[in-house]
Amino acid sequence: MSQPFLHHRRVEFRDTDAAGIVHFSVFFNYMEEAEHSLLRTLGMSVLSHDDEGPFSWPRVSVWCDYRSPLRFGEEFDVSVHVARLGRSSVTYAFHFTRDGNAVAEGEVVAVCCRLSDGRPQPIPVPEPLAEKLRGLLIP
Amino acid sequence: MSQPFLHHRRVEFRDTDAAGIVHFSVFFNYMEEAEHSLLRTLGMSVLSHDDEGPFSWPRVSVWCDYRSPLRFGEEFDVSVHVARLGRSSVTYAFHFTRDGNAVAEGEVVAVCCRLSDGRPQPIPVPEPLAEKLRGLLIP
Amino acid sequence: MSQPFLHHRRVEFRDTDAAGIVHFSVFFNYMEEAEHSLLRTLGMSVLSHDDEGPFSWPRVSVWCDYRSPLRFGEEFDVSVHVARLGRSSVTYAFHFTRDGNAVAEGEVVAVCCRLSDGRPQPIPVPEPLAEKLRGLLIP
Amino acid sequence: MSQPFLHHRRVEFRDTDAAGIVHFSVFFNYMEEAEHSLLRTLGMSVLSHDDEGPFSWPRVSVWCDYRSPLRFGEEFDVSVHVARLGRSSVTYAFHFTRDGNAVAEGEVVAVCCRLSDGRPQPIPVPEPLAEKLRGLLIP
Repeated sequence: MSQPFLHHRRVEFRDTDAAGIVHFSVFFNYMEEAEHSLLRTLGMSVLSHDDEGPFSWPRVSVWCDYRSPLRFGEEFDVSVHVARLGRSSVTYAFHFTRDGNAVAEGEVVAVCCRLSDGRPQPIPVPEPLAEKLRGLLIP
Repeated sequence: MSQPFLHHRRVEFRDTDAAGIVHFSVFFNYMEEAEHSLLRTLGMSVLSHDDEGPFSWPRVSVWCDYRSPLRFGEEFDVSVHVARLGRSSVTYAFHFTRDGNAVAEGEVVAVCCRLSDGRPQPIPVPEPLAEKLRGLLIP
Repeated sequence: MSQPFLHHRRVEFRDTDAAGIVHFSVFFNYMEEAEHSLLRTLGMSVLSHDDEGPFSWPRVSVWCDYRSPLRFGEEFDVSVHVARLGRSSVTYAFHFTRDGNAVAEGEVVAVCCRLSDGRPQPIPVPEPLAEKLRGLLIP
Repeated sequence: MSQPFLHHRRVEFRDTDAAGIVHFSVFFNYMEEAEHSLLRTLGMSVLSHDDEGPFSWPRVSVWCDYRSPLRFGEEFDVSVHVARLGRSSVTYAFHFTRDGNAVAEGEVVAVCCRLSDGRPQPIPVPEPLAEKLRGLLIP
C-alpha cells in the first residue's frame, strides 16, 4: 500500500550538456516519462477521451531540487508518488536515485482539463483514475 | 540575384553535449530555424492556410556533413539557398560558417502538403512563394 | 534602479510538442538563455576562469509556474531579477510575458562552484559580479 | 550471420512537435541511442580509453529519409547494420519500422578519433571492435 511506481532509465547522450552531466531541464522530461509510464500502467493515456471529448493534463507548476549529477550511460530509478490529489489536479512527487543514492527530487502539478478550441477547462479527475491514484498517495 | 538568405545564431548551452560541442542532431534544428526565418521574411509561415484549408511542409529527406565543431557561446551564420524547386518540393541548402570558416553543410527536402485527417497529400508549391524561392536558387 | 534585465525570444518549432504548445521543460532552457545573456552583458560567462582555475554555476533548485501557453512563432519577453544573493548562490527570478500578458514565472538557484576533478565545491560569488547582481535585486 | 542489431523504443512526449508527430531531428537521437546500445552490447562505450588515452566517435556525415510519421506513445524498432567499415570510420545503417512497416531509414558515419586538446585525430578502429562490426556488415 502506497508503494511508489518505479521507472528505470539510462542517461542517453543527448541528455547531457557541455558540463558533462545531464542538463537540469532534462529531469523534467524524465519526470514526464515516468508519469506517462504510470498512466499506461493504470490503463490511461496522457491524451484521453470520454463521452464529451478529449481531455489532457496541462502542467501548472513544477519544481526540482538537485543533489548529485547524472552522467552519460548511467542508469537510475525514478519513483513516483502522489503528493496531493485535488478535484481536478494531481501533484506527482518524483525521487531520482542511482544505486540507491539520492540524485534529485521534484514535483509536477497537472490539472485534468477538457480540451476545447479555446482555453483548457479544468474538469474533475475521472473517478476510476482518482481511485487508482489514491493508492499512490504519500501516507 | 541568388544571394542566399542569412540567419545568425549563438550556441545556447542546451545545444551542447558531454563532448563539449553542439550535438550533431541540433544542426537540423538550426536549419529549420533558418528556414522558418526565411519563410517569415517572405511573408509565409510553415503552417499556412489557403481557401482549401491548412497546408504545411513535412520533411522527406535530410542530410548534414560536419567539418568543424561548434562550442557553447560561439556565434555562427547559416546561409540558405534553394538547391532544387520541384512542383511540390523545395530542397533547401544550408551552409554553416563561423567567422567565415566552414562548420557544416546540409540539405532539407520539404514537400508542400495538404493536411487532411489522413496522410498528408502533396500539392503544388503556391506560385507566389515559388516565385520568391526561385530567387534563392543556386545558379 | 533594480530594473530587470530583458531577454526577447521567439518560439521555435522544436520547442513545441504534440499538444501544440511549448513543452513545459523548455521554459527552463529559456530561463537559462536569459541568464547567460545577462552574464554576457555583465562581461561574465557561465564558464569562467580565475587565478585558481575554472568555476561554474551548477543549479541546485528550480521551479516554474505556468499561466498561459506559448505557441509556435510567438514572440515573448523574459525579465530577469535577482531574488536573493547569498555568499555562493544566486537566485534568479524570471517573468515571461507575451504582449505584456503573464505567461509563466520561475526561479533558478545557481551556486558558484570551483570545478575540480571531484564534486563541485561552492566558492564565494566573485565580488565584481556580486556588485553587478545586487543592481538586479528585487527591492 | 549479418543479422542486424535491434533496438526497441517508445515515442516519448518531448519527442513530438506541434505537427503532432516526432520531430524529424529526433530520429538522429534515436539512431544514436541504437548505436550506443549496440556498442554496449559489444562491450564498448562511445567514450572509450586505451593505453594512449581517450578516444571517441565524432560524426562526419548523417542522413535520414522519412516514409511515415511516428506519433506519441507508439512503439517502434530500429535495426542497425554496418553499411561500410573503413580504417577509421564506421557507417551505420538504420531502418525504422512500426509493426513491420517502414517509417524511416538513415545512416551515420562516425570516425574513431583520439581526443587530444586540439582537433580530434582519426585513429584505426580498434581491431577487436572492427571484428565485431564486420559481423553486422550488410552482405
